[in-house]
Amino acid sequence: MSGSEFGLIQSYFSIPGQSLLAQQDHPDIIQGIGDDCAILSPPADQHLLVSIDTLISGVHFPAQTSPQAVAHKALAVNLSDLAAMGAKPAWFTLALTLPDNNQNWLELFSQSLFKLASEYQIPLIGGDTTRGDLAVTIQIAGYVPPDSALKRSGAQAGDIIALTGALGAAAIGLDIALEQNRAHYQCLSQTRKKAAQLALNYPCPRIREGMIIRQYAHSALDISDGLLADLGHILSASEVGADVFLEYLPLSETLACLKPEQQWEKALTGGDDYELCFTLSEDKWQALKHAYPHFTAIGHITKSRKLRCLTADGKLFELQNRGYNHFD
Amino acid sequence: MSGSEFGLIQSYFSIPGQSLLAQQDHPDIIQGIGDDCAILSPPADQHLLVSIDTLISGVHFPAQTSPQAVAHKALAVNLSDLAAMGAKPAWFTLALTLPDNNQNWLELFSQSLFKLASEYQIPLIGGDTTRGDLAVTIQIAGYVPPDSALKRSGAQAGDIIALTGALGAAAIGLDIALEQNRAHYQCLSQTRKKAAQLALNYPCPRIREGMIIRQYAHSALDISDGLLADLGHILSASEVGADVFLEYLPLSETLACLKPEQQWEKALTGGDDYELCFTLSEDKWQALKHAYPHFTAIGHITKSRKLRCLTADGKLFELQNRGYNHFD
Repeated sequence: MSGSEFGLIQSYFSIPGQSLLAQQDHPDIIQGIGDDCAILSPPADQHLLVSIDTLISGVHFPAQTSPQAVAHKALAVNLSDLAAMGAKPAWFTLALTLPDNNQNWLELFSQSLFKLASEYQIPLIGGDTTRGDLAVTIQIAGYVPPDSALKRSGAQAGDIIALTGALGAAAIGLDIALEQNRAHYQCLSQTRKKAAQLALNYPCPRIREGMIIRQYAHSALDISDGLLADLGHILSASEVGADVFLEYLPLSETLACLKPEQQWEKALTGGDDYELCFTLSEDKWQALKHAYPHFTAIGHITKSRKLRCLTADGKLFELQNRGYNHFD
Repeated sequence: MSGSEFGLIQSYFSIPGQSLLAQQDHPDIIQGIGDDCAILSPPADQHLLVSIDTLISGVHFPAQTSPQAVAHKALAVNLSDLAAMGAKPAWFTLALTLPDNNQNWLELFSQSLFKLASEYQIPLIGGDTTRGDLAVTIQIAGYVPPDSALKRSGAQAGDIIALTGALGAAAIGLDIALEQNRAHYQCLSQTRKKAAQLALNYPCPRIREGMIIRQYAHSALDISDGLLADLGHILSASEVGADVFLEYLPLSETLACLKPEQQWEKALTGGDDYELCFTLSEDKWQALKHAYPHFTAIGHITKSRKLRCLTADGKLFELQNRGYNHFD
């Protein structure tokens, strides 16, 4: 890393990082930014979970997205990967590719990044700044007690399938940002439109929920590409099927202008919601629901190896599109 | 991560990874690719070192660089960050941005990546594939015994400054790749030209050397942006200066066509060599040199806070350019 790059990182990313790096809060971080590597001492009684995700301008977010939203989303989607496995955030590194050295953009980006990082008490421990089209790669790490990480592969026939929140708002936010399907959203108030755009740009990683669910669930993941596409990963990793009941889907209020079939389609295939989808036994579901009533059961795991979406009168619901895919 | 992306990673990156992931060799890796996060159990008696580096097509390597060279270099520069601190490689994650789903490119890229990974016994434990201009981000992790990582900040006045290998070949390789300064290289044989291009595209991370030097040195880093630019980081982190003697610089044979001043300039400012630069006491230098005679002393650390390059007759050598910088 060369002189002014290093200065760039130091000025925008190192100082707020230091304030987050109070030794009493993070005894696992021996040294953060400033050398060839960060030096860590992960607790011996925990497993370390790591994940890496890249967000590209024009692919993962519209090109006009604000620096604050880009920063929030880049960290939030990585936190969401930790949440999906029930981990507590530990630290992250940032590889930032920028078309130019725009001081104002960097200031807004770094403020937003550290705001979210501070909320989840996760320090930035290293980074790289390069020149090119805007792209943000974050590698995140978290801790779980040994053998307690939630995996995709643990679903069992008979499990309840449940969700942490409502679906569809981020997909509406994307339509609005891209000015698509305008006619559909004429009934939406400005407040609801704003809420949809916030859902797209400022997803809330379900860290606390993941750490609770970890004690109950057989399997889990986060919904980044749409419920059906992501639930499909649980099904294939666990070698099972699922019946999802449309009438139970927790629909975002931003979907209210759409016809029922369109609402279901958005909820089933819309990406970027970052809710958790998890499966657990009927008994555990009753216990979890009693303690945390805000989760929603939407169906159950079957032996069939098929993923079926069923209407209230038991009919199969057929979809046009099953989820977002960069390389289709 | 969506369906076919996942398939893409599975087909090119997961299978060779699995063969690397023999449990007896990597008891610290509980689960690699295939879930939201990888699950690790770092040894309790080691510190964990992490670093992240991005390589962008047209910035860090010429756009026509082969997929094999891109893969090698992306992993090698990250391994070099571990080498700089004396760490043993542990694992890495890959965030790959590709303009299209080019099967042939991916096959060549992944083969080369796993060839180098296998050489250093470092498994790939997670990844992300996105669409965009070609960029490769690798996050790497390694282990060192507690409190033994080599830092930039440990140099002391009186220390010998030493290098692991020769300088300048990669800079000549870049000139050749970009067809710059052609007239300078007319005396170079085709074999030497080839060697210069190999130095640029296939740097050798000094992992073994770093683990040896760790037992002797006060400070170290790897030379990615040119000796002077990188040595400058040691000086500023350690609050010291340095005298570098041009006559002692280990010059690559590919520099032979150039005038002496041009050779020194290339050796001092050419990037991409990925040799280690380290400082150690005179006593330790004598011991290290006795055991490993292939390192070269090039100068010493001073109290002055100045970095001076001196000719054999004690004159100051002034440079046009002090190193590579993405944001200058």
